[in-house]
Order: sequence, then C-alpha cells, then structure tokens
Amino acid sequence: MFTYEIKTRYNETGQDGIIHHSSYAIYFEVARLEFFKNLDCDINVLEKAKIFCPLIDLSIKYIKPLHCLENIVIEVSINEFSKVVFKLDYKILKDNVLISSGFTSHCFTNGRFKPVRIPAHILEKFKSFKRP
Amino acid sequence: MFTYEIKTRYNETGQDGIIHHSSYAIYFEVARLEFFKNLDCDINVLEKAKIFCPLIDLSIKYIKPLHCLENIVIEVSINEFSKVVFKLDYKILKDNVLISSGFTSHCFTNGRFKPVRIPAHILEKFKSFKRP
Amino acid sequence: MFTYEIKTRYNETGQDGIIHHSSYAIYFEVARLEFFKNLDCDINVLEKAKIFCPLIDLSIKYIKPLHCLENIVIEVSINEFSKVVFKLDYKILKDNVLISSGFTSHCFTNGRFKPVRIPAHILEKFKSFKRP
Amino acid sequence: MFTYEIKTRYNETGQDGIIHHSSYAIYFEVARLEFFKNLDCDINVLEKAKIFCPLIDLSIKYIKPLHCLENIVIEVSINEFSKVVFKLDYKILKDNVLISSGFTSHCFTNGRFKPVRIPAHILEKFKSFKRP
Repeated sequence: MFTYEIKTRYNETGQDGIIHHSSYAIYFEVARLEFFKNLDCDINVLEKAKIFCPLIDLSIKYIKPLHCLENIVIEVSINEFSKVVFKLDYKILKDNVLISSGFTSHCFTNGRFKPVRIPAHILEKFKSFKRP
Repeated sequence: MFTYEIKTRYNETGQDGIIHHSSYAIYFEVARLEFFKNLDCDINVLEKAKIFCPLIDLSIKYIKPLHCLENIVIEVSINEFSKVVFKLDYKILKDNVLISSGFTSHCFTNGRFKPVRIPAHILEKFKSFKRP
Repeated sequence: MFTYEIKTRYNETGQDGIIHHSSYAIYFEVARLEFFKNLDCDINVLEKAKIFCPLIDLSIKYIKPLHCLENIVIEVSINEFSKVVFKLDYKILKDNVLISSGFTSHCFTNGRFKPVRIPAHILEKFKSFKRP
Repeated sequence: MFTYEIKTRYNETGQDGIIHHSSYAIYFEVARLEFFKNLDCDINVLEKAKIFCPLIDLSIKYIKPLHCLENIVIEVSINEFSKVVFKLDYKILKDNVLISSGFTSHCFTNGRFKPVRIPAHILEKFKSFKRP
C-alpha cells in the first residue's frame, strides 16, 4: 500500500460548506501519480513517449464529509491487472477515520487513444508491488 | 428522462488533450441541478432552508474521450428511491454517440449533515417523474 | 464587442456561498475562445498547428458577488495589439448590472512557448474587429 | 515574508501542456490562507463568525510556464492596508526562478457581503507582520 498526504483547499469547498465530491477524484489522481512515480512510471515521461493512461471506470463512496484545510491521507493499492487493464483501490482517511473509498480502472493507450498492452516494465512494477 | 446541453471548456482539458475525468462529475451535477429545478426543487431554495443533498455514491464509465468546445447532451433520470436515499442515472452523448454513463446516489441531510427523510413534496415529484 | 452568455455552476461556489474568484478567469476564457472562434481563430485548430496563446497578464475587479445558477453575460473586446502582444477587455454582467471587469494580455508562441509574431490572418481579424 | 510550498497537479494542466492560468489564483489562495492561519486568523474560524474576506482585485503576471508535478514556492507578504482594505503581494518560484508575481486586494464583510472595518486583532497582526 502506498500512502500520500495532502491538505484540502478552500476552493474545493461548495456553498454547502463541505469539500465538493468532484475533488475526491482529484485526490485519488494526485495520490495515483505519486504512486506511479514511486513505481518509476512518471506520467510526464510516459506522456512524452505518447503513452496515455485514461480512466475506464471511476467509483467513489462518500462516507463522511471533509472541510477545507484538513490534512488527509490517501491510500492507493493495485489489486487487479490483466495484460491490458488494471484497477487501483483508494481510501481517504482523516485522523485515521475512513472518509471515502473508491477505485479507478485504467488502460494504457497510444496517442490516438487506442488501447495498447500494459508496457512490460510497468507490468513488472505492478507485479512486484502486489507481491507481499 | 431530462436532457440538458452544455459545451465542454478549455480549462477542463488536461495535458493529454482530452477532457479530465473529474469534469464528468461536474457535467452530471450541472444536469442534475437543472433537473431538480425542473422538478421545482431548486438547490438554492433547499440549501437556504438548510436541506442539503450530498452524494453517497458516484460511478462513471468512460466510453469515448471528449475534447474541448464540444456540445454534449446529458440525460438524467431517476429510477430508484426509498424514503431516504435516491439514485440518478446519467448518460453523456455527443452527436448521439454514447460518451459516458454513470450514476449518483444521494440522501437529504440537515445542516449538520445528518440524513433526513426525503421531503414529501420532493418524493411526490420523484414519483410523478417516474410515472410513464 | 462580442457577448456570450453562460450560467454559473454549483461547483464554482465556495463555503462563503458565492462564486469563487478563480472562476471569473474561466468565464473570461470561455467567452474569449468563443470570440476567437467567431473571428475564425478556433483554438483547437491553432493548437493542432502548434500555435499557443498563453496569458502574460490577468487582471480582475470584483464589483458584486455572484451565486450559482445565475445567467451571466460576458462581454469581450480587443482594444490594443502590437505585432506580438494583444490585450482583451472583459465585462461580466447579470441583469444588466456590472459584476466584474478585467483584462487579459496574451502573445502567441510556438510549441516550445517561445513568442512568435501574431499570425497575419489573425492580425487582420483583430483589425477588422476594432474597425467601427 | 511568508512562504509555502506545494506541488502542481495533473488536473491543473490544459491541452497546451502547461498549468492553466486560473490555477495561479488558487496557489495564491492556498498560500494566503496558510499565511492567515500563521497570523492566527484561521479562515474557518472567521467564516463561522460570519466574517468573510472576498477579493476586490486580482492581478497576475505570467513570466514562465509551469508543468505538472513541479514543486513551487509561493511567497506572500502584506505591504498596504487601511482600516478597511488590504493588499497582499505574491511571488511563485520554482528552483529559485521567478515564475509569476501578482497581488490580491481584499476587504472584510459581514454575512450579507457588506464591507466592515478590518477586525482590530487582525489589523494588529498585519502591523506586526510589516514591522521589520
């Protein structure tokens, strides 16, 4: 499991006083790209090589509300992958309390957004991450 | 089924050249609040009365990419509701091609984000919308 | 003067109940790109040709607050341009009341963000727009 | 001078490959609210007491482009204030290189967005910050 800490922002709130639900997708992404970097798969390097990594599916459960200027921890883990698609699981915690859980599934594509096989060196990283 | 048309925006793109996945949650919301208004449940009126309507669940399938300055149609419908929770289904179409589908589930809460029953006049609207 | 109408969105509010100030820069941009399209300078066409149009300067005056789901009109006009830089002026109005005014200045750049001369066909459009 | 470090995010990029200009207003705000907190003026405490702090003016100069996942430092300082309005100056730096400069001016308001005098304890903080 990979963890990353960020702070919620004022502009992410809505007039109901809580963090807008769309920001959770951004928190997931911030943590995912740090996780990727940590696996030596920097998104900037990938995209310069015209390898993209769009979402196929997004799912978020909202358990407790968040407010602005709160420190949150995002947990990311990879639990499922084939040769083409992979799925990441997320948890958002504040003071060790579960705020949200969710997942994203992805594939890799070429510059015309046609799916390609997961690059071999990335698949290796995914395997090594899963290994206990 | 309620439909609403909007245009994708430049700032909603990412460096991969397509509309960022988090914007779809916003497109859903834009259409949802117009749908609500159409049911005579204006969110500004509700929130002034300290009735809030947070998300419990969000799910989005990304079928085809979107680019900026494209006209899209968002379809919203309500298919399931109890006395406390309700679920809305969405489709995003461009030139009659399905771009994305998804759902959100919600409850109504008081000002301290404690769930309350769906207000009677809203439940009536939900029922009348479902009726063929 | 070019005018464009949009509706403020829920996710653009903050916990203070009004539209977040950063959204005004987006409203300006939405109107600017429609104005450009109207001058036959579609940003998607320009950027495919590796011509970019970043901001050099942004200035916004906030005169009255905006709330969500309000119809606003954005006025754009071009009043100053040299061979390299140009400046656009904006007004945001709601029910004919001035909400905000501002300007952006821009140059055109190549794919490495080095300034280039304003393309001749665009300069012609700027001139014809200014002419009374 | 107060400094705060953050990391640019993927979702803040646009299809031109650089951080969208509207994100700079958010970076300013993130640093401003930390600066305020540091002056013992937590925005959440202020707003719970129905004291708001909207922008009157925003000005940003864009000197060099930013890309995603870059560490930036935001410098904030307060150089001008009367009994009602105050102005903050900002610089954004990356690897000690100036990326952007700008300012915001603000007033404090009551819950109906009518300007009020700067609260005495905040004015004291502003004075003590300016003192060398």
